[in-house]
Amino acid sequence: MSLIAKTPKPPYYAVIFTSHRSVHSNGDDGYDEMAVRMEELASQQAGFLGVESAREEVGITVSYWNSLESIKNWKANTEHQQAQKNGRSLWYSNFTVRICKVERDYCL
Amino acid sequence: MSLIAKTPKPPYYAVIFTSHRSVHSNGDDGYDEMAVRMEELASQQAGFLGVESAREEVGITVSYWNSLESIKNWKANTEHQQAQKNGRSLWYSNFTVRICKVERDYCL
Repeated sequence: MSLIAKTPKPPYYAVIFTSHRSVHSNGDDGYDEMAVRMEELASQQAGFLGVESAREEVGITVSYWNSLESIKNWKANTEHQQAQKNGRSLWYSNFTVRICKVERDYCL
Repeated sequence: MSLIAKTPKPPYYAVIFTSHRSVHSNGDDGYDEMAVRMEELASQQAGFLGVESAREEVGITVSYWNSLESIKNWKANTEHQQAQKNGRSLWYSNFTVRICKVERDYCL
């Protein structure tokens, strides 16, 4: 269940990961299990602030972090590195990752 | 059909709009028609670079812009203002808007 992330007062950082799943993948190929595990693992990292995720034709996952260093450390995490490798070879036909500084926010 | 946006070399700007639909809304209440119209209208604004959108439990729409001024102008657009008003009163139970500077990106 993905909710709207409760993030602190800006500035903080966002990683926007937009993807298309590979149509050639053999059934699930461990994708769903990986996605759950990566969200769990990310939430344990220093500097993690929250995550939001939805998929229709395109999948969008936005994770929020307190610094660029925490994003860098998460990218370098060993288990995450293996997921990134499988993502490139197996799960995604294409994706874009955007590293952003959140400058302002407001809510309803 | 939402695709991965083709954006220029950073820096550019992103507006992350994350929302929950109101459970009290009466049928569709014009929501789908508005969503299509707003995407069409946004794409005609100066400085618009692209948009990505998906909804499951949470809805995430990320629009990309070449400047903070283009985001400000889009927010002030008369037809968009009416949609924002209906969004607050009718379509959404809660939402968060985050204005971000995209500092870096990479693709598969």
